[in-house]
Amino acid sequence: MNKPKVFILGAGYGGLVTGTKLEKILKSGEADVTIVNKHDYHYITTQLHKIGAGTATDTKVALPISELIDPSKTNFKKAMVSSINSSSRRVTLDTGEVLEYDYLLIALGFEVETYGIPGIKEHAFQIRSFRSTKAIYHQIHKQLALYKEDLDPSRLTFVVAGGGFTGVEMLGELAEGIPALCQNYDIPSDLIKIIAVEAAPSVLPFFEEESIDYTNRVLEKFNIDIRTGAKILECTPKMITLENNVEIPTRTVIWSCGVKANSIIQDCGLPIEKVKLPVDSMLRVQGMENVFCIGDCALFMKDEKSALPPTAQVALQEASVCAENIAASIRKSPLKLFEYHHKGSVASIGNLAAVGKVGKFRLSGLFAAFMKKVIEARYLFILGGPALILKQNLNLKHGSVKLAAKN
Amino acid sequence: MNKPKVFILGAGYGGLVTGTKLEKILKSGEADVTIVNKHDYHYITTQLHKIGAGTATDTKVALPISELIDPSKTNFKKAMVSSINSSSRRVTLDTGEVLEYDYLLIALGFEVETYGIPGIKEHAFQIRSFRSTKAIYHQIHKQLALYKEDLDPSRLTFVVAGGGFTGVEMLGELAEGIPALCQNYDIPSDLIKIIAVEAAPSVLPFFEEESIDYTNRVLEKFNIDIRTGAKILECTPKMITLENNVEIPTRTVIWSCGVKANSIIQDCGLPIEKVKLPVDSMLRVQGMENVFCIGDCALFMKDEKSALPPTAQVALQEASVCAENIAASIRKSPLKLFEYHHKGSVASIGNLAAVGKVGKFRLSGLFAAFMKKVIEARYLFILGGPALILKQNLNLKHGSVKLAAKN
Repeated sequence: MNKPKVFILGAGYGGLVTGTKLEKILKSGEADVTIVNKHDYHYITTQLHKIGAGTATDTKVALPISELIDPSKTNFKKAMVSSINSSSRRVTLDTGEVLEYDYLLIALGFEVETYGIPGIKEHAFQIRSFRSTKAIYHQIHKQLALYKEDLDPSRLTFVVAGGGFTGVEMLGELAEGIPALCQNYDIPSDLIKIIAVEAAPSVLPFFEEESIDYTNRVLEKFNIDIRTGAKILECTPKMITLENNVEIPTRTVIWSCGVKANSIIQDCGLPIEKVKLPVDSMLRVQGMENVFCIGDCALFMKDEKSALPPTAQVALQEASVCAENIAASIRKSPLKLFEYHHKGSVASIGNLAAVGKVGKFRLSGLFAAFMKKVIEARYLFILGGPALILKQNLNLKHGSVKLAAKN
Repeated sequence: MNKPKVFILGAGYGGLVTGTKLEKILKSGEADVTIVNKHDYHYITTQLHKIGAGTATDTKVALPISELIDPSKTNFKKAMVSSINSSSRRVTLDTGEVLEYDYLLIALGFEVETYGIPGIKEHAFQIRSFRSTKAIYHQIHKQLALYKEDLDPSRLTFVVAGGGFTGVEMLGELAEGIPALCQNYDIPSDLIKIIAVEAAPSVLPFFEEESIDYTNRVLEKFNIDIRTGAKILECTPKMITLENNVEIPTRTVIWSCGVKANSIIQDCGLPIEKVKLPVDSMLRVQGMENVFCIGDCALFMKDEKSALPPTAQVALQEASVCAENIAASIRKSPLKLFEYHHKGSVASIGNLAAVGKVGKFRLSGLFAAFMKKVIEARYLFILGGPALILKQNLNLKHGSVKLAAKN
């Protein structure tokens, strides 16, 4: 008896949740499901910036995959995907191993887009993976330690490039996290400069005006220097250069200006549109019956003009339908149409403030911060039920971390 | 009643131990003693390299000064010395405060000597202070984290420049510490390259041949690449260049090639010889009756040709006599002649090996490692008695840290 082989590439939001849903849908012996991932942990991408600022512990953000899947139902393979060949139905791993699939889910996530700006790739830090943000954390410590050696103020200047969702959340965590570290290094926290650089005329350009105003007020309360309408021309190890010859001496530029699909999908013999894999309304790569794609690699047109954005919310909703459709494909039963329902977006700014919209309601302040934590808890619930929420001990009470904003 | 004012500048080995000895010698009301130090902690300089490699906890190396002195007997002032004016008997601090002294002890320690080699000051890391070595620790973590991003092998290459006492000890700690960190970053530890660069024909050039041979064997067992007779020409953020166009791509150069006296002593109106303050046999700066100098700033000629080296052992022996002589000066009684008795030197190479000489006995291996720990414990005893040894919980049992050498 030949069980169909299902391979899920990537254990981010999309891949991992598809895997755990399949565990519930498939009966024993119906298929042989394997998740392939670069690391043996899953990280909560939307909380990575907290690792960078040192405001969350590792175990709250990186979860062992072995504890999230049921090993009796799902296999796990720690490896990187080297290439995908859709005509021979094969995936080659960096270990040399070749996987022959009957059904494939491509959920390989994003890469950072640097738009070819000189020096960004080499010198700016990325909020991309658990380790890339861990590097930010050690960079901050290193600069604080070395400041005491040479008193160079560029060591105490931290620039976040990109005032979108992630950039604003990073700014909030830095504003809370760095002053706390200053005590350890005996540095007066008013010497710290945190600068937000955004090319658009405002931060959070896709939010409503009232939300943008609230965000500006919170960032200003944190003494963050907001430079909007400011285009970055170059980044060097000691400086970032903006238009009009504005130079900001800094050792630490955190790049948060955009993402693109994992570049591995470009050469797999599948159709490519807008550098992504266009998928049909059943989440199958166009023209393919056995290759699915969700998350940041997928181009799903929500109407004629616009595609769904690369967000956790989209990936999670896609994962749920994708699991059903993989099972339906195996069973030769009809597939479900995917429809996206936007539930809202809430950006936290530090531990005690947040801003966004849930349904029709615009939120800001403490209640928004509370809702943000509810959203985070909800993800843990999807992933591992109430036990995981308990285990991760997510702090639903606000106020337990002191506000470190300078008044 | 005017109590004579004694100021001790620096709370390193020399200054701090002089202060604690004075607490025992002076009677209540005999003098007003103040220690001035940049930080409110004393660090055990000979163990700083362990902070860099992450093989010792902060609290084992940095001790709060407030817990080492008796505040009812000794004042403590956290400040940096800006200038010393010996003709007006005044010391100016960075806080703007001016101290008028009756007796002064200059024990301001060392600065790193870079011999003007291009790029060393800017790009190499120093084993100089608690924070400068903390920066090494975060640099190592940052490089391991970023290696996973770009797979650049220069991130896994760690160069120790200088194969003297401190350099060899640093090499041993790196060889034990980094492979342990590799696990956290999922990096095979055999990708780590640790390179020792020494201009002299061998490491530990002042040790005997048998000791040098033993050291080489241990370093080789640790897979350390030893480059002797190799002069460094330049250091850049990504490379170190040796003579004969040898280029080593690396992000981390730890400079351990020499020290010089704190440069603040150059402009204080006191005699200068060989960039140090020449002292008489009572440890007073030549020609001065009320200014003492010990440790790395002092030039004490042990015979006509050679001066005492800038070591912890010298500073500690000097401190003991210096405290007696400061008290004797206050009491107008005769001062004591200082005589140095070399007790030996033991360099540890990681946790389980050490090499050196104690008295007439050449030591190596486990017993030497044990003796090194006895020497460390002895310092804590001098500083704070058996209670401090207990508190610092110095591990006298060998073997409790696993040997991480690659076999």
